[in-house]
Amino acid sequence: MFNKEIETLPLAQLRKLQSERLVKLVERVYAKVPFYKNALDQKGIKPSDIKSIEDLHKLPFTKKTDLRDQYPFGFLTLPENDLARIHCSSGTTGKPTVVAYTKKDVEIFSEVVARSLAAGGAKPGMKLHNSYGYGLFTGGIGLHYGAEKLGMSVIPVSGGRTDRQIQLLKDFQSEVICCTPSYAQTIAFELEKQGISLSELNLKYAVLGAEPWTDAIRKDIETSLGVKATNIYGLSEVIGPGVSQEAYDEQSTGSYIWEDHFFPEVVDKDTGEPLPYGEEGVLVFTTLTKEAMPMLRYWTNDICSIYYDESKSRTHIKMSQIKGRADDMLIIRGVNLFHTQVEEVFKDCPQLTPNYQLVVTKDGVNDRVEVKVETSQDYQKEIALAGGFTDEEVMSHESLLYLNRDLCKKIKDATGLSMKLSLKAHGKIPKSEGGKLQRIVDLR
Amino acid sequence: MFNKEIETLPLAQLRKLQSERLVKLVERVYAKVPFYKNALDQKGIKPSDIKSIEDLHKLPFTKKTDLRDQYPFGFLTLPENDLARIHCSSGTTGKPTVVAYTKKDVEIFSEVVARSLAAGGAKPGMKLHNSYGYGLFTGGIGLHYGAEKLGMSVIPVSGGRTDRQIQLLKDFQSEVICCTPSYAQTIAFELEKQGISLSELNLKYAVLGAEPWTDAIRKDIETSLGVKATNIYGLSEVIGPGVSQEAYDEQSTGSYIWEDHFFPEVVDKDTGEPLPYGEEGVLVFTTLTKEAMPMLRYWTNDICSIYYDESKSRTHIKMSQIKGRADDMLIIRGVNLFHTQVEEVFKDCPQLTPNYQLVVTKDGVNDRVEVKVETSQDYQKEIALAGGFTDEEVMSHESLLYLNRDLCKKIKDATGLSMKLSLKAHGKIPKSEGGKLQRIVDLR
Repeated sequence: MFNKEIETLPLAQLRKLQSERLVKLVERVYAKVPFYKNALDQKGIKPSDIKSIEDLHKLPFTKKTDLRDQYPFGFLTLPENDLARIHCSSGTTGKPTVVAYTKKDVEIFSEVVARSLAAGGAKPGMKLHNSYGYGLFTGGIGLHYGAEKLGMSVIPVSGGRTDRQIQLLKDFQSEVICCTPSYAQTIAFELEKQGISLSELNLKYAVLGAEPWTDAIRKDIETSLGVKATNIYGLSEVIGPGVSQEAYDEQSTGSYIWEDHFFPEVVDKDTGEPLPYGEEGVLVFTTLTKEAMPMLRYWTNDICSIYYDESKSRTHIKMSQIKGRADDMLIIRGVNLFHTQVEEVFKDCPQLTPNYQLVVTKDGVNDRVEVKVETSQDYQKEIALAGGFTDEEVMSHESLLYLNRDLCKKIKDATGLSMKLSLKAHGKIPKSEGGKLQRIVDLR
Repeated sequence: MFNKEIETLPLAQLRKLQSERLVKLVERVYAKVPFYKNALDQKGIKPSDIKSIEDLHKLPFTKKTDLRDQYPFGFLTLPENDLARIHCSSGTTGKPTVVAYTKKDVEIFSEVVARSLAAGGAKPGMKLHNSYGYGLFTGGIGLHYGAEKLGMSVIPVSGGRTDRQIQLLKDFQSEVICCTPSYAQTIAFELEKQGISLSELNLKYAVLGAEPWTDAIRKDIETSLGVKATNIYGLSEVIGPGVSQEAYDEQSTGSYIWEDHFFPEVVDKDTGEPLPYGEEGVLVFTTLTKEAMPMLRYWTNDICSIYYDESKSRTHIKMSQIKGRADDMLIIRGVNLFHTQVEEVFKDCPQLTPNYQLVVTKDGVNDRVEVKVETSQDYQKEIALAGGFTDEEVMSHESLLYLNRDLCKKIKDATGLSMKLSLKAHGKIPKSEGGKLQRIVDLR
């Protein structure tokens, strides 16, 4: 552990620390940030109403649109010339989102990344091959500073040029790599293609993040790179990578949230009401210690659950893997559903095209989902040729009934929900015209 | 000044400091780096022979090929797990060149860059728009750490996406930009194209480097970006950017070399003999303080002169602008000549093609240069049409004599050397076949 005292702080003490920090934080943002003064005033909340972390739910949420509205520096609690660093999101859709740091914020950022790397297996003296992009994106520099703080030797490779990445992995014998899970797979693929054996490398740990991934991907990466692979989670608006991290010896049990700095809640995506530990909803963070641009209840839009895992080595709370984005989540008969769960079922099915829609209706008090998906031209032809059928006859052929039954079972297994499945002829579901296809038609 | 005490240290004290540091350095590399032990042994030099900075010339040179031969870690003075960071060159031609840093080396790097930025006009609290590439290249991270040390607010933009760079320059109102001179020109060009007035920006200083540039380019950038533009010089093998820096109020008088850390010499490119202050030759650096991978007399291959400028604010030595690379330098009758100086004369001359050659011969003790250059097809046609001349008649037409006389004068003005000029018909000088054209034919 990088900071054993804090990472194993008894919960009561952690709560005390969080409460003290929250009280100061609310005073600070009320005095310094007009956006928060207005938001608290509108709710009729005074800073003095916030006496402990228990009062957190009284505070307003902060959403990404608020950050955009306050672009560039509306959320600052201090003058611009007291800043140490400014990052921002790529701003592909309109104005970028600005995130600003004081020197102390950069130190906090380094501390939580150092803890995360250590939890991921890294030790002082090891080499970190850092393939996260350096620049305005917080990934590269974030991991860089954390590794430096931990006492590693950092190789600031940044992204791209996989050939060179592999040469450096071989020549420098780095023990730890950090990048996105998909880039780890790219490197593994390239190693295999070039016939490079794992014995030529010295990788032991991979700290992967910046995109959702699964245990199946983990298994693939662990085998193909010869590493223990763990999840690092974060977002620039909160601080960057290092908001939470999975321990390498507690894989698949969730990622520790460094809750002395980032207080998490999971709330109902529609009502904003806090949900009990273990229930899935929108992850929300309050930055208890950030100076330049603290956030009250920042709405990450990520769906997961949080819970204490008392059998584990640290006292901090854990979060589950991210299931998806809140604006993609349906609640069907009380069960959370992402259309991507259904997509997963269809993915490796050659009888279908990737074109599908979920139509949600209400039948009395019950939600009903109809899944419409296209059969592929090849599959239709195959049936037609075999029996000399017309187009119409093909679509009512019995093999489609078997396929339908099979898919319904797989969907039930994957989602926990029974759905009606309608197989449509090729071309019968509207295609995306440039933009994103409307996968969900919610008629409730 | 960032570090007034050191930047204005009386020369006698600077010499004393340099001597103490050199003695320790030689002991260290002799004991730790087999390459240096061998090189000293071969010269019959013992560490105890090095008593002061005056003995520096006894030591062997280190060349880029030596770094390649010792790839990756042959030059390390300590175990790999004592390193804090590893950079390397792009390695487009074979193995990359590795440069390694301890924590203390990174601190020295930050210190000299902080001094450089301050000399370039930057002050604590100002925003630095850092457009140098981040990653394995030392430019981006080098400037980043230096600016942080100076107390600036760093915007780690890295290279590319000029549109976004301009948006951030406008929105964040950065006072200082650092990048290559050519990228500064690209940004200026884009500003003009988009009709953005300088009053919408807040730029005051530009710290430019990583490529040779001229006072003409400086003038262009200063006008088009509304800045004071200064030169920063460095190379990864020595430490990165920040080896030397021009002061913003002493422009065009040379760049200060931070000689408490990097001891410079200028030597004859053929004999390696040290040259007196003010004479042009190859710049060579000894890193007096670097821990992980110190360099004895590193042969930069850059041509310039060094000199003390006693009327100026700091005591450290200055270097002139880089004239070119040693392997491109001719010595003609004692005068240094780069073929690019002749190329400059031809550049804006529509009567010529860009195809030329310099043929150097010896006539007794005297060097002679014949410049062969092609006339353009358009120019030949123009003469032929006007007088109904044959191809042969065109090439002896009197307008070519005038052109020849004019060019000879311009070459003499630009280089200080009289040369014979031969105008050749279009297509009469061999063209590059993929590779670089042999611009110089040295027959001495």
